[in-house]
Amino acid sequence: MNYKLVREQTLKFCNHLHIEDYAIQVVQFASPPKWHLAHTTWFFETFILKAYVHNYTEFNSHFNFLFNSYYNNAGDRVLQSNRGNMSRPSTDEILEYRTYVDAKMHELLLDVSDKKLIELVMLGLNHEQQHQELLVTDVKYMFGHNPIFPVFNTEYNLVKDHNLNTESVKIQAGVYEVGYQGTEFCYDNELGVHKVYINDFEIQNQLVTNGEYIEFIASGAYSDFNLWLDEGWTWVNTHKINAPMYWHKMDDEWHYYTLSGLQKVDKNAILSHINYYEAQAFAEWKGMRLPTEFEWEVASKALNWGTRWEWTNSAYLPYPNFQKENGALGEYNGKFMSNKMVLRGASVATSPNHSRDTYRNFFNPTERWQFTGIRLAK
Amino acid sequence: MNYKLVREQTLKFCNHLHIEDYAIQVVQFASPPKWHLAHTTWFFETFILKAYVHNYTEFNSHFNFLFNSYYNNAGDRVLQSNRGNMSRPSTDEILEYRTYVDAKMHELLLDVSDKKLIELVMLGLNHEQQHQELLVTDVKYMFGHNPIFPVFNTEYNLVKDHNLNTESVKIQAGVYEVGYQGTEFCYDNELGVHKVYINDFEIQNQLVTNGEYIEFIASGAYSDFNLWLDEGWTWVNTHKINAPMYWHKMDDEWHYYTLSGLQKVDKNAILSHINYYEAQAFAEWKGMRLPTEFEWEVASKALNWGTRWEWTNSAYLPYPNFQKENGALGEYNGKFMSNKMVLRGASVATSPNHSRDTYRNFFNPTERWQFTGIRLAK
Amino acid sequence: MNYKLVREQTLKFCNHLHIEDYAIQVVQFASPPKWHLAHTTWFFETFILKAYVHNYTEFNSHFNFLFNSYYNNAGDRVLQSNRGNMSRPSTDEILEYRTYVDAKMHELLLDVSDKKLIELVMLGLNHEQQHQELLVTDVKYMFGHNPIFPVFNTEYNLVKDHNLNTESVKIQAGVYEVGYQGTEFCYDNELGVHKVYINDFEIQNQLVTNGEYIEFIASGAYSDFNLWLDEGWTWVNTHKINAPMYWHKMDDEWHYYTLSGLQKVDKNAILSHINYYEAQAFAEWKGMRLPTEFEWEVASKALNWGTRWEWTNSAYLPYPNFQKENGALGEYNGKFMSNKMVLRGASVATSPNHSRDTYRNFFNPTERWQFTGIRLAK
Amino acid sequence: MNYKLVREQTLKFCNHLHIEDYAIQVVQFASPPKWHLAHTTWFFETFILKAYVHNYTEFNSHFNFLFNSYYNNAGDRVLQSNRGNMSRPSTDEILEYRTYVDAKMHELLLDVSDKKLIELVMLGLNHEQQHQELLVTDVKYMFGHNPIFPVFNTEYNLVKDHNLNTESVKIQAGVYEVGYQGTEFCYDNELGVHKVYINDFEIQNQLVTNGEYIEFIASGAYSDFNLWLDEGWTWVNTHKINAPMYWHKMDDEWHYYTLSGLQKVDKNAILSHINYYEAQAFAEWKGMRLPTEFEWEVASKALNWGTRWEWTNSAYLPYPNFQKENGALGEYNGKFMSNKMVLRGASVATSPNHSRDTYRNFFNPTERWQFTGIRLAK
Repeated sequence: MNYKLVREQTLKFCNHLHIEDYAIQVVQFASPPKWHLAHTTWFFETFILKAYVHNYTEFNSHFNFLFNSYYNNAGDRVLQSNRGNMSRPSTDEILEYRTYVDAKMHELLLDVSDKKLIELVMLGLNHEQQHQELLVTDVKYMFGHNPIFPVFNTEYNLVKDHNLNTESVKIQAGVYEVGYQGTEFCYDNELGVHKVYINDFEIQNQLVTNGEYIEFIASGAYSDFNLWLDEGWTWVNTHKINAPMYWHKMDDEWHYYTLSGLQKVDKNAILSHINYYEAQAFAEWKGMRLPTEFEWEVASKALNWGTRWEWTNSAYLPYPNFQKENGALGEYNGKFMSNKMVLRGASVATSPNHSRDTYRNFFNPTERWQFTGIRLAK
Repeated sequence: MNYKLVREQTLKFCNHLHIEDYAIQVVQFASPPKWHLAHTTWFFETFILKAYVHNYTEFNSHFNFLFNSYYNNAGDRVLQSNRGNMSRPSTDEILEYRTYVDAKMHELLLDVSDKKLIELVMLGLNHEQQHQELLVTDVKYMFGHNPIFPVFNTEYNLVKDHNLNTESVKIQAGVYEVGYQGTEFCYDNELGVHKVYINDFEIQNQLVTNGEYIEFIASGAYSDFNLWLDEGWTWVNTHKINAPMYWHKMDDEWHYYTLSGLQKVDKNAILSHINYYEAQAFAEWKGMRLPTEFEWEVASKALNWGTRWEWTNSAYLPYPNFQKENGALGEYNGKFMSNKMVLRGASVATSPNHSRDTYRNFFNPTERWQFTGIRLAK
Repeated sequence: MNYKLVREQTLKFCNHLHIEDYAIQVVQFASPPKWHLAHTTWFFETFILKAYVHNYTEFNSHFNFLFNSYYNNAGDRVLQSNRGNMSRPSTDEILEYRTYVDAKMHELLLDVSDKKLIELVMLGLNHEQQHQELLVTDVKYMFGHNPIFPVFNTEYNLVKDHNLNTESVKIQAGVYEVGYQGTEFCYDNELGVHKVYINDFEIQNQLVTNGEYIEFIASGAYSDFNLWLDEGWTWVNTHKINAPMYWHKMDDEWHYYTLSGLQKVDKNAILSHINYYEAQAFAEWKGMRLPTEFEWEVASKALNWGTRWEWTNSAYLPYPNFQKENGALGEYNGKFMSNKMVLRGASVATSPNHSRDTYRNFFNPTERWQFTGIRLAK
Repeated sequence: MNYKLVREQTLKFCNHLHIEDYAIQVVQFASPPKWHLAHTTWFFETFILKAYVHNYTEFNSHFNFLFNSYYNNAGDRVLQSNRGNMSRPSTDEILEYRTYVDAKMHELLLDVSDKKLIELVMLGLNHEQQHQELLVTDVKYMFGHNPIFPVFNTEYNLVKDHNLNTESVKIQAGVYEVGYQGTEFCYDNELGVHKVYINDFEIQNQLVTNGEYIEFIASGAYSDFNLWLDEGWTWVNTHKINAPMYWHKMDDEWHYYTLSGLQKVDKNAILSHINYYEAQAFAEWKGMRLPTEFEWEVASKALNWGTRWEWTNSAYLPYPNFQKENGALGEYNGKFMSNKMVLRGASVATSPNHSRDTYRNFFNPTERWQFTGIRLAK
């Protein structure tokens, strides 16, 4: 993975933004673009430059407080919900921060004989890629909740892929090995190859489409409590949900906000922006179920994946022999292992080469702003 | 299981209550004793008498609305948080309701050739036993949060059992079968015997004591974020938690409320009233972990269990081939399968013969008012 | 005012309650009957017996904590919202507390030469009378929010008085004196007789009826924002209000809960249970306004008053030269002088001889559970 | 009042902002600068151009929804708390909007024979001036709550004025006339000249200084409940308040954020940024009180005023004969007449010639972000 290319990729997406767009936070979980640009840079400065560069001078002593996300070991920080309250430092100052840190990193990377350093750089770049995806989804959230539905870029739609040749894949019962076995980078939560017993099951090689989901809506599913988990039913009623995020019924026809503007829903395109409760209810309605993360992993070679993060029916919990690193980086994944569900695959917003078939993404079951989809099993 | 004996058991516990105690609801999740007495009766009336007794006359037409707990299929109901707002119907009227329904049930049970009916009665009695346990824990919550700490019964302490001979049990890796295989009553969530692969592990045959937990507290564990899951750490800080529920430090010594009044904490007695986050943090502090529900089940024959509900590191999710019943009774267990953790075993408040080694209890990871405990594994 | 008679009056009302009714708190502002019985007794114990009886032995050392309402000077106390969480001390124990304190008071009152003591006793009895009224309104709130609408007493309706001979009273502009000028008991907030200038105005000698208010509702008033104050409009929409408290439309006809049960609304009876925002909107709809508290006081001789607390258009603020007493009793009235509106008159639930034409009652503009009414002026 | 000059004044203040500053909303009551620029323009477009210009073409049909503040009569609108969620329309587009509307207004104002039109323009300009003050206070709020305390402009401090020659002014009891009697512009809430009776009183000709307030703090006032109104005491404890807004104790010395940056508190400068509860508690501590709005008005000729909005002890209520205009402009002042206190005078942030001695400003008693001060009376 090339440091320069990955870092440039982040800025490339931002080219379409206006300056005001960089500063806004619409909801707690979606950070301002300016914050993503600074936080990813802070990650390199904090965990690499401060540790490896002798007498390193930090760019700005306030930035540790401003741009730490959730690392308790790295000190106090701005509340997540207050990230959008800070018009300053300005976008320009943050771009200078990136330039400063990149220059120092380039120097440091001239000599990469230190194996631990290489590991940290790989982690930093994978971390940057995760924020590249969040940049996309957070900007979509901001624009999709603006009453005038701004166009981000007319050529950047992200939800127009279609499915072809849906088929059912059969897997035989038995003991399988799961977990990352390669030699490249992976996250700590994928490690610890271990055996699992899996029963016979069938899984579809394609994802659910908008057209299928429109049938689900039309059947009255959002008011049929028997389809929903208890917490899902509470969520539907509390928020008066009746469709995926970004969908609006106008003149009796479903439309959705895309990054290229408001459009009619394409029935053949792959469904997106549903949460775990909706995925589970849809499967219930079909008389099927969601696959577990292990079923998914075992079947993955035969699946057509990569356009949506796919909700599994597995809670996000540690693998046997899960090892938490010491210090701040130990907070990367492990501490979130409660009340989250695993998503497998990757989405159209995921950076190229970022994911793999052992990758364990995770979100609260209520969240919909990622490009999430449904794969059925039975 | 004997209908009369189980029903009488419920009233027996109530003998120590004053009339005012029957009506109070201190917190949403703990219902008034009066409500438990009525709701368990409503269960028999609704699912058995109305279905099996020709021309059955209901005791009071308001009671379906008042005493339905969470069955959407059974119609509208009083909000859970409002159960304690109703001083009427009075306790006397509810005792009449029990007498009325019991009389009808006795008549019906003279002829029990109908297999489905027997199943429903068994379900009703197991349901009654679950509420017997809730009666105990809800009354403890009410008294334990009263500033004058009323004594329920001087001979009814429930938290004084000690541990002896703690040993480590070793289990070999392999494929095991889990799930209920017997021919007696069990819940739907235990059905579907299936294979699981389990790695080598060790598990303690005894539960953690108050003394061990006092060391954990004394080490500063409640202010060391590295021990806690992210949501656990938020919970600790939001509620300023520094000890198990019912514990109070007085004159530099730990005391706890028991149903026989406020007492010094017995260091050799088994720890109770901690939640999943505390259990997980304690295990982390010990350099160990909680067992999964399958490890627990496989090892159960060698374990000393039955005094505390034991937090496992398994999320409450459906077994392969889980079948949800149609109608209201399908809401009994299945719809709660999100954001809950499985507890195995049984507690001192569990009714005799109610639990078994395949029993899957489940609660939110924040809850502490049940008699919960910690068993360590590695 | 006779100590014994006033104290007995409190118990007389309670005769119609069941034991469970004594313990329940449905909403923060409405205390359980048991609490009223104890708190009024605590008032005599704390401010009189402890101060005047040498070596007085308090009945129970916990009761200061349990039954202090809002007197910071009298120490810590149970949160107002938790008054209904305490099933113990039992009603019986509180009745013993009353008997104990009454016996001590009777002894003390054999010699009443101390002027300050007499003043305190008078304050204690007036305080008891205020709680007699709250007992009525709090019990009505509890029963009126119980889905089965229990009958308190078939002969105790309280909202059936009619109006006769509505006329307009004209008052001439000029300087008038307001404030209490008598020699009997009054509250500190009525003292400080002072001059006010009042313009010409007209005021109705009678209160608005249910029939008039039904016309207001039927005109669509609850959805016409132009009639409402901004905060009133927010209140209407947040709580989806469309009628006075206790009103229910059944089979297209307005009913209301009364202490003698659910009844059809009597159109000729005097309106009750509206808040300041509703009173103000009704006046706006009529092209009139509410009187100020001084207009009310100046006109009072010519008015027919005493069945409802009448919302005025005056904020509850100190009179010129208002003197706050030192210590706990200085907290009786003065500290509530913000964000409250003055109500004048008295209601059917007010104890006999408790009110007078200079009496300043006060509530938040949102509150409706008192027997409140509307008098129009222009 | 000159249309061009007033409109230019708004932009002049904004010259010191960065583009990101225009878009941010930190708290519900403080709107983004961009919104103020647009909303004041919308006011002219909606109430003047659409009414007076034949075939007027609105600049953008979305803007009525986006930039209506609280006028129910003018249609639906963005929630106040969501004003900061909209990065678009951009600042540039809003500046174009201002240019467009100003051009149309200039054309229209070539012929100003229509008296109603002149009145509306005067209202629009006074409205613009009110938002000029809000721009200052909202920007101060945004920067003062940014952890890096940005400097707005080193020469723009606003809180450095000192007091000289504090003296007591005595006013004799009698009937006085209050309300606006001039022929220039005033708000509807000042109209209706009427008599009031005022008792003898004394009032200070100068405002309280920071030094005096530091003594109040040092005396322990923020923890002495006897000084506070009940709601004030709740506010202090809920928000853990121990000093005016923008004050920070650093190295044992009080500092405050000013628009020219963080500075040591100047003890001789006039106190600012306290709310009604703090003003009232300070007066109580001094053994004095706040003046009523009528005392203030009657004494105003002898007072040194204009640097702070001065909290009075008068609730914001209608004058006798208050007339509400029909339609949207009737919502300007009247509907806010509940739970607000009147402030008299003007502040250093008030636009020149905007205020007068009959001007009735009003805010919730909790609010502190305006330049508010304390004047004592007795």
